[in-house]
Amino acid sequence: MPEVRVADLSALLGGECIGRGDLLVSRIGTLLDADENTVSFLANPRYEPQLAATRAGCVIVSPRHRAQAMSLPSAVVCEDPYWAYARLTQWWAKARTGLEADAPEAGGVHVSAVVDATADVHPTARVEALAVIGPGAQVGPGAHVGSHAVMEAFSSLGADSSLRPRTVLGRGCSVGERCILHPGVVIGADGFGFAPHQGRWEKIEQLGAVRIGHDVEIGANTCVDRGALEDTVIEDGVKLDNLIQIGHNVRIGAHTAMAGCVGVAGSARIGAHCTVGGGAIILGHLELADHVHVSAATVVTRSISKPGQYSGVYPFDENAAWEKNAATLRQLHGLRDRIRALEKATS
Amino acid sequence: MPEVRVADLSALLGGECIGRGDLLVSRIGTLLDADENTVSFLANPRYEPQLAATRAGCVIVSPRHRAQAMSLPSAVVCEDPYWAYARLTQWWAKARTGLEADAPEAGGVHVSAVVDATADVHPTARVEALAVIGPGAQVGPGAHVGSHAVMEAFSSLGADSSLRPRTVLGRGCSVGERCILHPGVVIGADGFGFAPHQGRWEKIEQLGAVRIGHDVEIGANTCVDRGALEDTVIEDGVKLDNLIQIGHNVRIGAHTAMAGCVGVAGSARIGAHCTVGGGAIILGHLELADHVHVSAATVVTRSISKPGQYSGVYPFDENAAWEKNAATLRQLHGLRDRIRALEKATS
Amino acid sequence: MPEVRVADLSALLGGECIGRGDLLVSRIGTLLDADENTVSFLANPRYEPQLAATRAGCVIVSPRHRAQAMSLPSAVVCEDPYWAYARLTQWWAKARTGLEADAPEAGGVHVSAVVDATADVHPTARVEALAVIGPGAQVGPGAHVGSHAVMEAFSSLGADSSLRPRTVLGRGCSVGERCILHPGVVIGADGFGFAPHQGRWEKIEQLGAVRIGHDVEIGANTCVDRGALEDTVIEDGVKLDNLIQIGHNVRIGAHTAMAGCVGVAGSARIGAHCTVGGGAIILGHLELADHVHVSAATVVTRSISKPGQYSGVYPFDENAAWEKNAATLRQLHGLRDRIRALEKATS
Repeated sequence: MPEVRVADLSALLGGECIGRGDLLVSRIGTLLDADENTVSFLANPRYEPQLAATRAGCVIVSPRHRAQAMSLPSAVVCEDPYWAYARLTQWWAKARTGLEADAPEAGGVHVSAVVDATADVHPTARVEALAVIGPGAQVGPGAHVGSHAVMEAFSSLGADSSLRPRTVLGRGCSVGERCILHPGVVIGADGFGFAPHQGRWEKIEQLGAVRIGHDVEIGANTCVDRGALEDTVIEDGVKLDNLIQIGHNVRIGAHTAMAGCVGVAGSARIGAHCTVGGGAIILGHLELADHVHVSAATVVTRSISKPGQYSGVYPFDENAAWEKNAATLRQLHGLRDRIRALEKATS
Repeated sequence: MPEVRVADLSALLGGECIGRGDLLVSRIGTLLDADENTVSFLANPRYEPQLAATRAGCVIVSPRHRAQAMSLPSAVVCEDPYWAYARLTQWWAKARTGLEADAPEAGGVHVSAVVDATADVHPTARVEALAVIGPGAQVGPGAHVGSHAVMEAFSSLGADSSLRPRTVLGRGCSVGERCILHPGVVIGADGFGFAPHQGRWEKIEQLGAVRIGHDVEIGANTCVDRGALEDTVIEDGVKLDNLIQIGHNVRIGAHTAMAGCVGVAGSARIGAHCTVGGGAIILGHLELADHVHVSAATVVTRSISKPGQYSGVYPFDENAAWEKNAATLRQLHGLRDRIRALEKATS
Repeated sequence: MPEVRVADLSALLGGECIGRGDLLVSRIGTLLDADENTVSFLANPRYEPQLAATRAGCVIVSPRHRAQAMSLPSAVVCEDPYWAYARLTQWWAKARTGLEADAPEAGGVHVSAVVDATADVHPTARVEALAVIGPGAQVGPGAHVGSHAVMEAFSSLGADSSLRPRTVLGRGCSVGERCILHPGVVIGADGFGFAPHQGRWEKIEQLGAVRIGHDVEIGANTCVDRGALEDTVIEDGVKLDNLIQIGHNVRIGAHTAMAGCVGVAGSARIGAHCTVGGGAIILGHLELADHVHVSAATVVTRSISKPGQYSGVYPFDENAAWEKNAATLRQLHGLRDRIRALEKATS
């Protein structure tokens, strides 16, 4: 594990060091779970009471908690402690990797990988065991193709991007720089397109591809389908969690984030800086403006042109209570009519 | 890219050629996005206004738009333009493949594939890099086993069917002819069967298999579980989108289509020619008649014996409005009682 | 197929043999589908009428049906027929495997597997074609690593556990004994953690791992993310169906079972002996007590401290009826106010 002086850590994060700058920390932990070797952080006001009680050697706090932090062995004061924590984890992960026995070497292609002679793999890229790279595919500098990853013909992976094990990057699809695709991701399967004809479905070949921007992260077993005629597009900085379905010809605006199990149907256009909660469904051919926030498990059935928070979840209850209310819900329209009738009768 | 004379394209689609039959098109596109080298189509009445404005060299139209199409450089008149478009994409995809550097050869097994000595792979089948084919498995004429696909023991893949990269066809499971299974599909994992006993779950071994008919397409990362005693059955022409869960002993009738993220619980029987919208859930042991259409995100909690469209989605709203209505929903049964009391009082 | 005398089968299950103990059965089937070579069972009272009509050679029944079973060729009387059926399938599956041509040998590593020199694979473990086992990984006695499974560095798989084909066990993650992970499972992908900063998302490296207890079964394409700082924990005897998402730092108590397509958001703590129906969503940072049962497709938005059944499903209806009621639902709060006004007016 990495070990670091609090003063160095403070410099790294661009914060102000308080207390013992020479103290060594070797672990990141929550306030509750900390010991003297732990660096912790206070970002959520909800955990404020834990600051007084923590045994952490160092806590990253905002200027608002400067005075309180004086009583700790040490602290780092930063404008945005959560952001500082994020950067700290990044530094930590890198430092940890360097210490470990299996640190990856500079680059190279594992002997068991199957790389087409016409593929263009940068010498600084790392291709792991049993990966398959097809004709004309391109792997950029510093990129990583994990075990069992499949890059189909003419696909491309940008600099410093990582295909984790068991991902598929489909024919002609492209991924920008500094992206992470987690295990099981499928980019560029056929979109769901069929023409009904005499009771059968005639396949519409999907002739578009998928284009993914820079700094995109895509969670395990998430799928992004290729476009029917034009491309499906994921813009820069988008973060998709696990088990998400993105239909063909969808466009997701920059820096939008979606939690697990979301489904976005074909040709929907999601704005930039949106968030979509877990299990939400967005129907096809809709448009969501920038800065739209959809609550978990909400079904978006029409376009949303105004930024804001939108919800549509059935409130859960003890089963017996739910049953009564749900049964009444089926008669709701009739109840409204009865209220109207009463209003007339009493007016 | 393929290049084709409009007259030839018209013959191919069995349509009537209008205007310049000698015109060459080399691209399929939407009316809006077209240029003079583009063949486009008008299928959805919603896009009718775009017909006058399009720059397409050729448009596929229905007889209803014959007169209007006269003013275009060229047109193909077909009874069903959307079906014609589907067949055009199929021709296009085949023609394109023939032109490309990586056109697959007639057949053969990649040197890195692991094929059991007792497997029966037809000489015209194509087995790609690092595929695994187990004992007694059968691969039909013209079939395709993609990179990293796994065919377990005694599974079979019919003529001209394709296992895309990273699919699993489980032990003893069968796939008919002309099927496509997209990356990450898992056919024949164990159904979810356990007997509760003294607070623990005793596994019920799943002794059935999965039988898939002809012309079935299954989307990326979709799962179809093997049956407990009898088989799970997917009939001819069924189309399943991505990330769908089909429980054990389900039967899906011919030419039924399901959009992404649908879940069908064990032993449900879905009729033929049904459609199920994205994110819908169908509970176990239910029966849906033929020609039942379930809207997206609807939860089907009892059998449906009458064809028609069924829905059950909570209407979404701005968060503040939703909160008020949702809170009231919890008291709905009480409201009904109050309406009754009012009716008595005023009668 | 295995063939067994009813008397032996009765001894195996610890039941009482009635009728012809020398009768041979060679198939397990439902009461409806049985023939004279079939052993069937009656567990669900719903199928009681089928007992009189069945053609099964042997039926497993509870003491309550002892008298009725006298008229069958043979029967096995057990306290818990469903549990007996479960154990019978286990015996059957084992017997069947022993009879088949491809019975796995005692252990060994397939020549095409890529096993790091520092990995510790027990000699009785079986590693199949093209599996990848990273540095420092451990595979216990009798364990099974399927084709294309990937065990990342320092991961461990306990005795008699099975990684089915195409699973990923992430870096440093551990699986206990007698577990089954079905194809496509991803254990230990990064949790979904980002700090918002100036309109972008800063990655929070996920420094925890996933710890899975004994006797856990995880369905196809299900994902369990690694923890942010501490570990994600799945306790003993948990059963997860297909396509489930378990967020980072979730803890699932012993012997809890979840059906397909469930999503559990980060840091939720689920008690022991719970059940969660298909498609349910459990929001993050919630606590569910032991013995909480969540109905299918229910969205759990707050903690539940009392055991019991909880539901929250929008009742589906014919589309026209649903449309009317759903439109009225948007005015529900207003309706309540109108009822209040009426009550005032008439009081």
